[in-house]
Amino acid sequence: MPMFDPALLQQIQPLDAQAMAEADARQRALTKPAGSLGRLEQVATQVAGISGQPRPTVARKAIITAAGDHGVVAEGVSAYPQEVTGQMVRNILNGGAAINVLARQIGARVLVLDAGIVADLPHHPALVSAKLGPGTANIARGPAMSRAQAGAALMLGIDAVRRERALGLDIVGTGDMGIGNTTPSAAICAAFTGLDPATICGRGTGVDDAGLQRKIAAVRSALQVNRPDPHDALGVLAAVGGFEIGAIAGIVLGAALERIPVVIDGYISTAGAMVAVCLAPQCRPYIIAAHPSQESGHAAMLAWLRVEPLLDLDLRLGEGTGAALAIGMVEAACRVLDEMATFAEAGVSGRGA
Amino acid sequence: MPMFDPALLQQIQPLDAQAMAEADARQRALTKPAGSLGRLEQVATQVAGISGQPRPTVARKAIITAAGDHGVVAEGVSAYPQEVTGQMVRNILNGGAAINVLARQIGARVLVLDAGIVADLPHHPALVSAKLGPGTANIARGPAMSRAQAGAALMLGIDAVRRERALGLDIVGTGDMGIGNTTPSAAICAAFTGLDPATICGRGTGVDDAGLQRKIAAVRSALQVNRPDPHDALGVLAAVGGFEIGAIAGIVLGAALERIPVVIDGYISTAGAMVAVCLAPQCRPYIIAAHPSQESGHAAMLAWLRVEPLLDLDLRLGEGTGAALAIGMVEAACRVLDEMATFAEAGVSGRGA
Repeated sequence: MPMFDPALLQQIQPLDAQAMAEADARQRALTKPAGSLGRLEQVATQVAGISGQPRPTVARKAIITAAGDHGVVAEGVSAYPQEVTGQMVRNILNGGAAINVLARQIGARVLVLDAGIVADLPHHPALVSAKLGPGTANIARGPAMSRAQAGAALMLGIDAVRRERALGLDIVGTGDMGIGNTTPSAAICAAFTGLDPATICGRGTGVDDAGLQRKIAAVRSALQVNRPDPHDALGVLAAVGGFEIGAIAGIVLGAALERIPVVIDGYISTAGAMVAVCLAPQCRPYIIAAHPSQESGHAAMLAWLRVEPLLDLDLRLGEGTGAALAIGMVEAACRVLDEMATFAEAGVSGRGA
Repeated sequence: MPMFDPALLQQIQPLDAQAMAEADARQRALTKPAGSLGRLEQVATQVAGISGQPRPTVARKAIITAAGDHGVVAEGVSAYPQEVTGQMVRNILNGGAAINVLARQIGARVLVLDAGIVADLPHHPALVSAKLGPGTANIARGPAMSRAQAGAALMLGIDAVRRERALGLDIVGTGDMGIGNTTPSAAICAAFTGLDPATICGRGTGVDDAGLQRKIAAVRSALQVNRPDPHDALGVLAAVGGFEIGAIAGIVLGAALERIPVVIDGYISTAGAMVAVCLAPQCRPYIIAAHPSQESGHAAMLAWLRVEPLLDLDLRLGEGTGAALAIGMVEAACRVLDEMATFAEAGVSGRGA
């Protein structure tokens, strides 16, 4: 099991202010009214600062979909049976899931990181098998995992980004797969924000009213039994988290360490990002939020993170689907910055007197 | 000058309910919680109804950027001099504008339709020269154009879509280029909605406070002098419109006639769409709105049209830039519908009891 050393996170650097200033200056010289591409201009400047390149390219892309199972499904919190986690991972490996379609469109590779699902899957080139256990323990009854496992989950994410970076990577998107994983995500949200579970638990994949009540009760119980300390991110992850949520936190940290932008998907990915930002606040500017999930509580998580999502398409699927769509926008933003002509190059007059 | 015969619009058909029902049924069979792709599912179903294909493809794409000049610039309503219209059209033909970059990313061709700019441009394969005049007359003093010119502007757009359709076209995006054209767009909005010009005039490419006051005064004057009848769309276009705005209205009508989705860009394109929908309400379901413009009044225009934009990126550039980004989303939506595996195909269990 990989060991996590918090000292590693001191290597995360602030964004490159010089590259950002150069990107901003170029934005103003391009043949468009200043600021008229709104969020695209902001995100291109952010990527300039992240990469240290005034005209960054976003060509080599990967979605890392972290998978895990959750003991808390015993509380009846999900509309789907646990076996669906492994079935859906197989579907992703076979190219039939939504994330495959959306990743193909943007030219991204998809990697599945098995951080601890119950099913045993055969070898596949797009699968990293790194099970930390056969799903977490039931958080409504005790901690999800040990502190060592929580650290190992982070390292899975960090190492996955490092390996992909070595293969060539300009941007990474996070994704998740795990039946029941909106429940630990809600518990993480409650632990960090102090909000009432009733206001932040949603219907996940589509649980009914009774299931929603069981979910709220499970989160309340998880907080009561485990008493997570919001200033101890690793403790929160160990107490009420998930293996794949820890891996996603690691992807965020790994991206910041490798100076590449990380596009976080929806509810579960944002819970992972909260763990990462609590551990290392200096990783926050490396984050691009894809979209506000339809899941209750996500707005509170994004507000806690202080990130503004790029897209709002009423998504609530996970897998990294929102991240893939948003990466297309980030690429568009960086292409505009790099490829457009300036007023001088195009011989276009500036503003009147 | 091409003649417009309103009887043509009777050929616009309602959406194909059978194709939409089949698309919806397939959405529910795909390996994702029902409805979890939100707006993408809705837009794919809409495209199914438009095209009559239960699994439509959005492969062949074009942005038609209509260009025109505006006599109302004499009122001091724009931050840029009129010569910029021609300069920016050249920039687009040379591939250096924002629309070129964004169209390249989605694999769309860009066509410039010169409906009446002042500058004379040399022949270019991506330019359709069809000037209806050297810019419109000053709407603050009298009508923008004759009723015959307004009809001809519609036909330019309709014919452009027909020609592109014959070359192979699955979806079209509208765009505009014309210094001063937020002023006639605001006047069209005021004519149809009855709203006060002060609430619907924005800063366009970035006019200062005094310029904004001149713009509001010009729109007030245009309404007072011309007294457009909101039930006479062609009359509104002739009175307070623009050549490119009429062409955009024609693109919307042409798309409906050819049964392809039309993605309307921002403020100016939406003014064109209002003219089209007033002429032929049955074209409305063929419209996909790209984004709410940062320009004041656009929300009122979208509300009048009863369309919900797909993206919100604080754009206010025009040219078709928002449409290009939104076409990427429409393609994603249709690919998901077509390419994802079903629960049965993937061997994934359905919802629990």
